[in-house]
Amino acid sequence: MSDLRKDPVLGRWVIVASERARRPSDFHCEEEDPRTTFCPFCEGNEDKTPPEITAVRAPGTPRDGPGWNVRVVPNKFPALAVEGELETRGVGMYDTMSGVGAHEVIIEGSDHIVSLTELDDGAVAEVLEIYQSRLLDLRQDRRLSCGMIFKNVGRTAGASLQHSHSQLIATPVVPKRVQEEMDGAARWMKHRGRCIYCDMVSQERADRSRLVLDAEDFVAFCPYASRFPFETWILPTRHASHFESQPDESRLVLARTLRRVLTKLESALENPPYNYVIHSSPLSSEPLDHYHWHIEIIPRLTKVAGFEWGTGFYINPVSPEQAAEYLRETDAP
Amino acid sequence: MSDLRKDPVLGRWVIVASERARRPSDFHCEEEDPRTTFCPFCEGNEDKTPPEITAVRAPGTPRDGPGWNVRVVPNKFPALAVEGELETRGVGMYDTMSGVGAHEVIIEGSDHIVSLTELDDGAVAEVLEIYQSRLLDLRQDRRLSCGMIFKNVGRTAGASLQHSHSQLIATPVVPKRVQEEMDGAARWMKHRGRCIYCDMVSQERADRSRLVLDAEDFVAFCPYASRFPFETWILPTRHASHFESQPDESRLVLARTLRRVLTKLESALENPPYNYVIHSSPLSSEPLDHYHWHIEIIPRLTKVAGFEWGTGFYINPVSPEQAAEYLRETDAP
Repeated sequence: MSDLRKDPVLGRWVIVASERARRPSDFHCEEEDPRTTFCPFCEGNEDKTPPEITAVRAPGTPRDGPGWNVRVVPNKFPALAVEGELETRGVGMYDTMSGVGAHEVIIEGSDHIVSLTELDDGAVAEVLEIYQSRLLDLRQDRRLSCGMIFKNVGRTAGASLQHSHSQLIATPVVPKRVQEEMDGAARWMKHRGRCIYCDMVSQERADRSRLVLDAEDFVAFCPYASRFPFETWILPTRHASHFESQPDESRLVLARTLRRVLTKLESALENPPYNYVIHSSPLSSEPLDHYHWHIEIIPRLTKVAGFEWGTGFYINPVSPEQAAEYLRETDAP
Repeated sequence: MSDLRKDPVLGRWVIVASERARRPSDFHCEEEDPRTTFCPFCEGNEDKTPPEITAVRAPGTPRDGPGWNVRVVPNKFPALAVEGELETRGVGMYDTMSGVGAHEVIIEGSDHIVSLTELDDGAVAEVLEIYQSRLLDLRQDRRLSCGMIFKNVGRTAGASLQHSHSQLIATPVVPKRVQEEMDGAARWMKHRGRCIYCDMVSQERADRSRLVLDAEDFVAFCPYASRFPFETWILPTRHASHFESQPDESRLVLARTLRRVLTKLESALENPPYNYVIHSSPLSSEPLDHYHWHIEIIPRLTKVAGFEWGTGFYINPVSPEQAAEYLRETDAP
């Protein structure tokens, strides 16, 4: 099992997943090209992944066989393990915790698609529904505090396989960055009595200079303090703290919004590497007035260098107003 | 002038440096190979950089001419500008500030060296002396709060030129990450009455499992909660809050320690891309009991992906104990 270790100064947790011993020479050569001929995520290769957790399947098709649209499996090299007791202990001045959690892969189509935008709106909605159902299921496990759904596209963005997929990691502690968002939003609520993200939605819709698209129930904009060129967020316009509780009626509009935003980014930036992350309230929390779930999409066009690592201060060479203007002008069917 | 913009939830600042308008097509192609034939940092090409701020020069050689060992010039494409008033204003719910600050480049040798380890200990000490003198000079500018010295080596780590160099960015606000380190260290002092980094030095020297080398006045170890494989920190063993106030007598030992640690990393990992950052107390602060300056060296072997961006939670596939063992066993003259 991996270890969780806490930085004593910053309170930042790290997963030390060193079960497969790695020698320095493992890092020497360039990684292989991910466009290998064999893909373990394609239909027909179900036995090349760990047994499926759930799937959207044609009626009557057997588990771990063909006939599915979306398939969820445990990560073959999990950062955290589902089995085991949650134990904490001290190592001199340091804190450590057993690496209990969940690490799943959501395979987004049985064909070898390389982008979520190759799916139609209905199929993207099925992916979103699976995201929600996995989070709702993991909520029942009282050892887990937080569930994070994210997508890595392209090697630069950390993807090791090309077949379109997302991942879910559920952690036994609330990560520092999530806690900071919660705290920042709670402070705004305390001083102003309003949700800070609802305020952002109002300002961005009124101002329009950073708006990418407005789909009534959802809005996409480049945030005022964008860290990265073409960083784009999608928020529900009605307040909601938990992504997994988003009502079924709105799913198709969200799917369409996400697909259109990704299509615009792919078209304007010629299929850039990117990450998206669904920021939602901790699994263990009740509905919250002050936090508002949203999706942050980060094209990986610039390199993060020493200054950013040392300060958490980012240098962005494209203003969000410029980025939003380009994205508004880029067609997306 | 660039803008500083503050994320209203996290309090994180971003430098939006969009003076040179960038179109999406600027990001399409792969960057050029930095091993171009022409290098603006080599001796004889002094007129290809902005005029020098300071240099370590042979007596009688003219400014901006040949005859130097270390040369400091303004960054040609500065993220922050030295001239201008420091003004803050609100943009609806958001905060912005004028992009006042300093952005300098420290060129570490007049020959076309590609690593600091190509210099001898004495020449590395000259580079460290220049780092200190630049910070001491910028301290006088009351508009500046923090000075960060960092090095990017290799394209993956953000370097655009190969010739060995470092950078200095001084900001008009204390960056979030720096403030968090100060706060975490102050909390430890409040509850335990000791410097947390002094405690780390004691524990790592006693435990030895994460120790890379111990040079009496300085110690190098892989931190307990390393975010990255082979992450290595160098700390002075005697408490000191400000790097720029480190006494002259210790400089040669620090130079030797830094050169040896970098040599070990280069040898074990075959010249990896890396960043180092000197973490020091804000320029504007007096000597502090609770904060302890140090150098963090981060080899860039793994990709930062969606999970890390969303949570600030890192997955490290190599334990610091394994990494330190490899580095101890790697020779460094």
